[in-house]
Amino acid sequence: MRYKAVISYLGSGYVGWQRQLNGLSVQQALEEALEKVFGAPTHATASGRTDAGVHAEGQVIHFDAETSIPAEKIPFAVNAVLPDDISMLLCEEASEDFNARFCAKRKTYAYRLYLSRHRRPLLDPTHEHIPVPLDLAAMREAAKEIEGTHDFKCFEAAGSVIKNTVRTVYSVNISAGTLPIVPLASLPSELADVPMFLNLTTGEEFNCTVDISVTGNGFLYNMVRIIAGTLVYVGMGKLSVEDVRKAILSKDRTLAGKTLPAKGLHLIEVRYD
Amino acid sequence: MRYKAVISYLGSGYVGWQRQLNGLSVQQALEEALEKVFGAPTHATASGRTDAGVHAEGQVIHFDAETSIPAEKIPFAVNAVLPDDISMLLCEEASEDFNARFCAKRKTYAYRLYLSRHRRPLLDPTHEHIPVPLDLAAMREAAKEIEGTHDFKCFEAAGSVIKNTVRTVYSVNISAGTLPIVPLASLPSELADVPMFLNLTTGEEFNCTVDISVTGNGFLYNMVRIIAGTLVYVGMGKLSVEDVRKAILSKDRTLAGKTLPAKGLHLIEVRYD
Repeated sequence: MRYKAVISYLGSGYVGWQRQLNGLSVQQALEEALEKVFGAPTHATASGRTDAGVHAEGQVIHFDAETSIPAEKIPFAVNAVLPDDISMLLCEEASEDFNARFCAKRKTYAYRLYLSRHRRPLLDPTHEHIPVPLDLAAMREAAKEIEGTHDFKCFEAAGSVIKNTVRTVYSVNISAGTLPIVPLASLPSELADVPMFLNLTTGEEFNCTVDISVTGNGFLYNMVRIIAGTLVYVGMGKLSVEDVRKAILSKDRTLAGKTLPAKGLHLIEVRYD
Repeated sequence: MRYKAVISYLGSGYVGWQRQLNGLSVQQALEEALEKVFGAPTHATASGRTDAGVHAEGQVIHFDAETSIPAEKIPFAVNAVLPDDISMLLCEEASEDFNARFCAKRKTYAYRLYLSRHRRPLLDPTHEHIPVPLDLAAMREAAKEIEGTHDFKCFEAAGSVIKNTVRTVYSVNISAGTLPIVPLASLPSELADVPMFLNLTTGEEFNCTVDISVTGNGFLYNMVRIIAGTLVYVGMGKLSVEDVRKAILSKDRTLAGKTLPAKGLHLIEVRYD
């Protein structure tokens, strides 16, 4: 029987999804757990590789197993033997021709930031720290330039050899949330100090979290991390909306922003027909 | 000069605030950083100890130092030498008689839970996992019984020797938030499966985060973790609101709920005059 499962993992401790010689991969940890539960070596195929340090909130996999455990009970058995930083959230029977990788129609990634003068240890493992305010309005305008079907070569890691770099990005949404704590609010001296960092048009966007959510039919290597880095440059005023339009048309990686670190990237959802 | 600072830390890797022989404490890591910055041994006093594994989003400390670094720049210097899981969010000059411990007037702790059938690796380091729905309405009713000035001996760790166990709890608030992801929404088979776990009156409270926020003038040993455990039992129907009233009047620890794990406890804010 073929099974489809949704898994979540904190990527910090892994070399990425795919088995590697240089360290423990999510795939290896998961396949070892599946073998313990099913009593036979079990290969797991994911919707796509996630790089070292990238997190998943809704990665989809498929695997084949012969078991008397009902599909909806498999996560309880597998989670009992998985490390705490990997979890199976859901499992269901799938048709024999279901392939988590080749049947995937669209994926949503979120790149998570927090805007705060100083590091926030509770967010730092899963969010990138940006120590200055960002102009979210300008970032949202630039995001519109990215939506659509384009040759996204400018957002592909240099040195990639993929021939077809045309992809469709269905949406790029930017949402802000409050930080778990803002001691500044209760401390006048710090409040008085904030303007030093404050861009008056964006002041209310400092001391918050920012999620850059990107949905597309597929992504080039490092594409979401480069899109996030480009939008952050727009938020800082280092790039204009026009610069982003030109970067896409130019297909020139050097005109886009920097690649942000893996720790802020989260695979949120994979959709199938 | 005396300084007041707000610090945040992820407690997972520490034996607690206070220096211990059995491992690294937040106090030791912080004092080592202060010594590097000020060039002299510097003692830090916190508003109170936090236990091994407990997190802080707004712990307040004081220390004395002779330095030419302006107070508002001290966090940049200290954070440059602190490990990533500790951060100084704010520093200001304080009067010589300011004492972070003895001048504290009220503290707010949050006990963070997530309600989900399966473990969520991105929340698990800082939240306690509750795999069943909770009746938040009943928990809020029980919380009202805890507010006020009472002898809270029933919420004190057994074996404590403090004589005066009367404290004032100003508020106990329970708030729910959505989980970062709910794959169930996009997966019919899982949706169909949910009722197995669902208490119809509280179904909408499953697959969410729950914060139990407690503000008081002081807390007994393990008091917030026992209050949280007691309210979770109310949410599960293991204890009634009346049982909580009786537990407080009885001063009997055995009538309250269990002590929840340290990893869900966060010191949020300490207030002074």
